[in-house]
Amino acid sequence: MTESTTVAEATTVAVATQFDLATGLAESVPSLRRPLSAMTGMYADTAAFEAAVADGDPLTYEFYDMGVPALETEIAYGTSITYPGKVGDEYHMTKGHFHERLESAEIYFCLSGRGLMLMESPEGDVQVEEFAPGRAVYVPGRYAHRSVNTSPDEPLITFFAFPGDAGHDYGTIETKGFRKIVVDRDGEPELLDNPRWVG
Amino acid sequence: MTESTTVAEATTVAVATQFDLATGLAESVPSLRRPLSAMTGMYADTAAFEAAVADGDPLTYEFYDMGVPALETEIAYGTSITYPGKVGDEYHMTKGHFHERLESAEIYFCLSGRGLMLMESPEGDVQVEEFAPGRAVYVPGRYAHRSVNTSPDEPLITFFAFPGDAGHDYGTIETKGFRKIVVDRDGEPELLDNPRWVG
Ligand SMILES: [Mn+2]
Ligand SMILES: [Mn+2]
Repeated sequence: MTESTTVAEATTVAVATQFDLATGLAESVPSLRRPLSAMTGMYADTAAFEAAVADGDPLTYEFYDMGVPALETEIAYGTSITYPGKVGDEYHMTKGHFHERLESAEIYFCLSGRGLMLMESPEGDVQVEEFAPGRAVYVPGRYAHRSVNTSPDEPLITFFAFPGDAGHDYGTIETKGFRKIVVDRDGEPELLDNPRWVG
Repeated sequence: MTESTTVAEATTVAVATQFDLATGLAESVPSLRRPLSAMTGMYADTAAFEAAVADGDPLTYEFYDMGVPALETEIAYGTSITYPGKVGDEYHMTKGHFHERLESAEIYFCLSGRGLMLMESPEGDVQVEEFAPGRAVYVPGRYAHRSVNTSPDEPLITFFAFPGDAGHDYGTIETKGFRKIVVDRDGEPELLDNPRWVG
């Protein structure tokens, strides 16, 4: 990256990428891997979080950035894999983000696993949709979105697509958190107020 | 549609739609079904085409329009299912189209089956990529695109996503056709010049 303003150039060549439907992974492209330690401050049970990080810092999710030009006419895409597990009674989840161009929507198509898409607008409206194999979840513009794996043993694997110029705002979630958390209550997901949410 | 200018409103509500990964179909949404007779003039072997239409006019492909607003911040999506079969030695295929906003790209993610994505620019550049389960094919902007099922027995099922404001231009392909056709040569797909192409 240079200091000068760069103008993204539109794609002109088709690209094919083989993903493994069983793992969600592509051998030809490096994934972005997020160990639990990347989630500091995000899980409610700090003691359980610190203990799990000290005890091997497990990979909790990974996903792909395919390097699509940041243009509204292009489509950014990839897979996202959230591994099963809990921190205390809170399910493994992605960090989640708003889009920098806030009104940009996104589609997630669940390839395997079980989970929830947790969504929240800047005004505090919360929406939740279920992931199951073959289920498409449309995230409307203006909503931060976080994938939550509610399965005891299966990775949650999704294929996602969003406008190339959407961009990512992770900072707001890093600072404030989501208003809700998803915990395991006798084997079923339950939505609770986030005790660590910064209003 | 009314005569007045309509302004599409952005989505504000998440939508979840269950697709069957085995068939590609969603029970809750009607698909757009294209019998062979919708493809008049597109297959090279006119006699074989007429005979197949007379002999039951088989469903050759179907796909979904989920009614996403026509805005650059929204993502149109759905599944496409092209059924196996041939007209003469030419594989079953979709009609194919340019995007009305020509520079709009599209991503196809193959869920099952085998096939090819046939692409062509207005200047006549031709690109081809293979579909196989788990394979993502990125169609660059400015390229017409047509799915071709090269399997002897399996449906070609893809999940697709493109900018909400892309629009569809089917007319150019209906009038001119693609420059290339895909035929079965001893069980393998081969690209040939389209004898019916209108230059
Ligand atoms: Mn996103
Ligand atoms: Mn298209």
